[in-house]
Amino acid sequence: MKKTWLYTLFCLTAGVSTVAITASASAAVSAETAFIFNTLSFLMHGFLVMWMAAGFCMLEAGLVRSKNTTIQCSKNIGLYSIAGIMYWLVGYNLMYSGVDGGWIGSFSPWAASDPAVTADGFKADDGNVYAAGSDWFFQMVFVAAAGSIVSGTVAERVKIFSFFIFIVILTAIIYPIQGSWTWGGGWLSEMGFSDFAGSTIVHSVGGWAALAGALIIGARKGKYGNDGQVTPMPGANLPLATLGTFILWLGWFGFNGGSQLAMGSAADAVAISSIYINTNLSAAGGVIAAIVLNQILYKKLDLTMALNGALGGLVAVTAEPLAPSPGLAIFIGGIGGIIVVLAVPLLDKLKIDDVVGAIPVHLLCGIWGTIAVVLSNSDASLATQLIGIVSIGLFTIVTSATVWFVIKLTIGLRPTEEEELAGLDKSECGMEAYPEFN
Amino acid sequence: MKKTWLYTLFCLTAGVSTVAITASASAAVSAETAFIFNTLSFLMHGFLVMWMAAGFCMLEAGLVRSKNTTIQCSKNIGLYSIAGIMYWLVGYNLMYSGVDGGWIGSFSPWAASDPAVTADGFKADDGNVYAAGSDWFFQMVFVAAAGSIVSGTVAERVKIFSFFIFIVILTAIIYPIQGSWTWGGGWLSEMGFSDFAGSTIVHSVGGWAALAGALIIGARKGKYGNDGQVTPMPGANLPLATLGTFILWLGWFGFNGGSQLAMGSAADAVAISSIYINTNLSAAGGVIAAIVLNQILYKKLDLTMALNGALGGLVAVTAEPLAPSPGLAIFIGGIGGIIVVLAVPLLDKLKIDDVVGAIPVHLLCGIWGTIAVVLSNSDASLATQLIGIVSIGLFTIVTSATVWFVIKLTIGLRPTEEEELAGLDKSECGMEAYPEFN
Amino acid sequence: MKKTWLYTLFCLTAGVSTVAITASASAAVSAETAFIFNTLSFLMHGFLVMWMAAGFCMLEAGLVRSKNTTIQCSKNIGLYSIAGIMYWLVGYNLMYSGVDGGWIGSFSPWAASDPAVTADGFKADDGNVYAAGSDWFFQMVFVAAAGSIVSGTVAERVKIFSFFIFIVILTAIIYPIQGSWTWGGGWLSEMGFSDFAGSTIVHSVGGWAALAGALIIGARKGKYGNDGQVTPMPGANLPLATLGTFILWLGWFGFNGGSQLAMGSAADAVAISSIYINTNLSAAGGVIAAIVLNQILYKKLDLTMALNGALGGLVAVTAEPLAPSPGLAIFIGGIGGIIVVLAVPLLDKLKIDDVVGAIPVHLLCGIWGTIAVVLSNSDASLATQLIGIVSIGLFTIVTSATVWFVIKLTIGLRPTEEEELAGLDKSECGMEAYPEFN
Repeated sequence: MKKTWLYTLFCLTAGVSTVAITASASAAVSAETAFIFNTLSFLMHGFLVMWMAAGFCMLEAGLVRSKNTTIQCSKNIGLYSIAGIMYWLVGYNLMYSGVDGGWIGSFSPWAASDPAVTADGFKADDGNVYAAGSDWFFQMVFVAAAGSIVSGTVAERVKIFSFFIFIVILTAIIYPIQGSWTWGGGWLSEMGFSDFAGSTIVHSVGGWAALAGALIIGARKGKYGNDGQVTPMPGANLPLATLGTFILWLGWFGFNGGSQLAMGSAADAVAISSIYINTNLSAAGGVIAAIVLNQILYKKLDLTMALNGALGGLVAVTAEPLAPSPGLAIFIGGIGGIIVVLAVPLLDKLKIDDVVGAIPVHLLCGIWGTIAVVLSNSDASLATQLIGIVSIGLFTIVTSATVWFVIKLTIGLRPTEEEELAGLDKSECGMEAYPEFN
Repeated sequence: MKKTWLYTLFCLTAGVSTVAITASASAAVSAETAFIFNTLSFLMHGFLVMWMAAGFCMLEAGLVRSKNTTIQCSKNIGLYSIAGIMYWLVGYNLMYSGVDGGWIGSFSPWAASDPAVTADGFKADDGNVYAAGSDWFFQMVFVAAAGSIVSGTVAERVKIFSFFIFIVILTAIIYPIQGSWTWGGGWLSEMGFSDFAGSTIVHSVGGWAALAGALIIGARKGKYGNDGQVTPMPGANLPLATLGTFILWLGWFGFNGGSQLAMGSAADAVAISSIYINTNLSAAGGVIAAIVLNQILYKKLDLTMALNGALGGLVAVTAEPLAPSPGLAIFIGGIGGIIVVLAVPLLDKLKIDDVVGAIPVHLLCGIWGTIAVVLSNSDASLATQLIGIVSIGLFTIVTSATVWFVIKLTIGLRPTEEEELAGLDKSECGMEAYPEFN
Repeated sequence: MKKTWLYTLFCLTAGVSTVAITASASAAVSAETAFIFNTLSFLMHGFLVMWMAAGFCMLEAGLVRSKNTTIQCSKNIGLYSIAGIMYWLVGYNLMYSGVDGGWIGSFSPWAASDPAVTADGFKADDGNVYAAGSDWFFQMVFVAAAGSIVSGTVAERVKIFSFFIFIVILTAIIYPIQGSWTWGGGWLSEMGFSDFAGSTIVHSVGGWAALAGALIIGARKGKYGNDGQVTPMPGANLPLATLGTFILWLGWFGFNGGSQLAMGSAADAVAISSIYINTNLSAAGGVIAAIVLNQILYKKLDLTMALNGALGGLVAVTAEPLAPSPGLAIFIGGIGGIIVVLAVPLLDKLKIDDVVGAIPVHLLCGIWGTIAVVLSNSDASLATQLIGIVSIGLFTIVTSATVWFVIKLTIGLRPTEEEELAGLDKSECGMEAYPEFN
């Protein structure tokens, strides 16, 4: 854009010999071309993030027992649907409209405000550098991801409509309000809190909501004995969980890459390339660290730890996928993998029943990643990062716990013990996931 | 770069103050850039639609019984292969070449006719606004989708080579001829029939062909008793069916988004963004409506209804994914979900055995979606929409029934009763899908 | 387009005959726009190739027995992680840095060298026509594919850390060195060896490494009797193997399409379109040929042959996916399908135990495809193609065999017979893939 202005100025003053400047003008990206690239980035990266809904679903369907698999699939397709509708009806404007340094936006359904494309051609007005709808689409799939995190932790013991009510509040109110603080231009943003693609804003938020749920709902019947014994309840379909992890890994290129929010310049293209590399290498670091540490501690290659190691690495690099060198990205992800291997048994000691390991992966690695921003981004300060982590954490756990409690006291959260032991597929869905296999 | 040099030369010799106009020229998308964007849209959205072949395969493999799973996978990979080859050999030109307001194109294999890219640069001649091959690729994956719809309905009881012969005729002749009427510029197009991405042209056509097959092949042995009793034959692997639905949902962004047929202007980018949003929200509306109605009617969350609700919503919005507001898209999809929940038991009452529910999803929701075009697109008239629905429906069911009949009378459609009871995996494929699981 | 009209109008009134030249100037792609398109091609096609890691994993997880499924998933997520880290640390520069007509690059970790994007704008220096990182990402996912091929052949009988050590050497040293000969600008490149996307450089290399492993590790216990009897050991989950094949098919559009290495001109967009078509039709040809030949020989539709037929077709067209006509692509893929059907039983006669059929698919079809380049690419000579095939084959099998031997003599390759019969999931991973299903 500068080129055009310079060129105009030059032509007005000089008139003709415009050689060098015309050449550089023609080397640049036109405003409309940039608009298309930026929009395409949101759409392409957005469909990759949408695909993460399938990833969470497969991961969770593979890690629950077969008698709770149908309900887990139902929860995932239902929550993704709820998230989209609520984010249109309430969430988006609450997060992005009129926040202005404050802590909340406005209550109204979202409507696109695209630049007029007249017969004379495209008008790139201020701020209209991408189609408004493409941005909405991209942000919408993010809120769905936060919801998916919750469903994994509280699996196998919550009634499905009670869960759906929680998701309505999470995606319409809780997520958007805290999101407005940073991404909506609210008070945390003004303070300089830095969370590129949402280690805290998406993943820890999902993790805090999941933790609140796990505490209030309680553990699965029989999981923890009075004598401190932990009964393993292994997942029914590990290849499916592996598939889910690969889907999430693929989707994460969209999650982090699209969070550059632009692709209409060479600088953006270079940035997205670095983001892809760091995202991939951090996940790889998480896998390797989890495999090696687990081998040292337990002399086995625990596949679920390798999978959660990948996810821990992905969550960890999400707060700052652009600035780190490849080596630093591997380190950040590697610490994520270590956190997963150490925290999973720790939660069992605390009798917090997290069926798929979502709290270590999304909450703890999210915190780690948000702190690790200061390792490569000199604009971030440790104090501000901690303020962001704590304030968002407090807000989310208090509001989530309140919602879980209200549901518990009204329509109730848990099925009967008999129903739980028989598996929720029967009582809630009336059908079996694998009727011929067991 | 050469161009710039020429222009520079011009400026040096001519010397005019072309400031304002150059600036606006520089804001626009160049012809070659638009060519690349348009081509990219076909390719990217095309690979998403190709991915739907996997979605149909997983959906169907999950909803059949384990003894018919291998053949279902074989049918899906076979039909996708046949569709591509036949559409190259016959179908594409029959649909798009020389239709000129009529009802059929020409019989000849497709060959690319791309603009010459000379040493002097790109020549965007009239009509050459994208690579011809990218359009072929995009249209080819559509015909495969129509074929996939059939395979779900007639599952578990048809010999595989008989099925393949039907697919040859469907993809080479039936689909292209009716497609030429609208998308090829034939008589329905001239009349003003509006079907943006194929609620009727792809989905109802698949549904009519499936219905003809279901009627002529008959129900699975033991499905319907003489006393009106319906024997449930539940699918063997519901997480796989869920995965298939998520794949289809993802692929549908390509199906509808790519049907904008261009991405080379800001207006196109805005349009594709709206299409993504409406596609997503219509599916979400279908899920929620199906879940709620099923809960009211049967007090259970039937996962297969939720999945088919998503697909019903997707099919319904396909005829007009651009014009509706988000709220209207949710409504259109919601009606789709309701149709699914009501029509699935109705088919059983009529003793029409539709294994995966493809007729409610693709035929009925396709009809609904084609009618619903008039709710938002003022260029469409209800009368013309009905003429399109009926004429395409009549053509497809008559031709499909004829082909099914001829196959029945010659090589036969059904295996022996003994083979059917043992499962077709043994007789047709000689192998089991899950040899260790049951 | 409208812009041009306005400008024309202006020129007509202003009095200069600049119409044609300005129009053609405005028709071109600017340098920065081309930079973004080229980068986007690497990123988008790269994430499709990354997705092939999931495809190999699902294919292999579906084709092994359930007692070896967890370890197969672990191997796949581990090898993908190792490949990325090693290719950054050693492989990329060994393959691409300072080869200069020789046979090896330099030992150093890769670091991006992107053009400066200054405040004045983008500088497209020589060779900087895409983001360096996007190219690294694209090449990285290729080396992972080569590693995945090996894991399928040697499944069910190798210790996981022994396997990982082999993958470290393969991805850091063996693959990059032979890759430097052609793609790094080394001696084979100077000789004119032509392998567009890697029928030989990726697929045969994986196949040779797999063959060396199969020979040195030996067959699974009980696979081959002394009397020449072959005991079938069918895969546990054929829908998963089918999913894996569809994933690979989708990923292959990235594999071959991205290997055009550019998307910043109309000519590139046309080329990528042709590549998509040929890739798809060659796979389709492989499926149909495998189905028909298998039906003729054995009177059954063997699903695993259809799946491997698709992959054989894809491998075969990979050496030259651009030049063939659609008909020739179907032929090339069809021969690939025939090779698969004939070679799978042949390997069993030779007592080479290839669990998933990777040697026929990747090694033999890779050789066929590399030879078939001469059918459509007049720049390729049969003699040079054979020199490339033989030299790369010799190098890979000798180095691979050496590494497998060294591992065998040091930490060992195989678990105990008792562990193998119980399944490696127990001894290596300590968990079952499907604990409830059998």
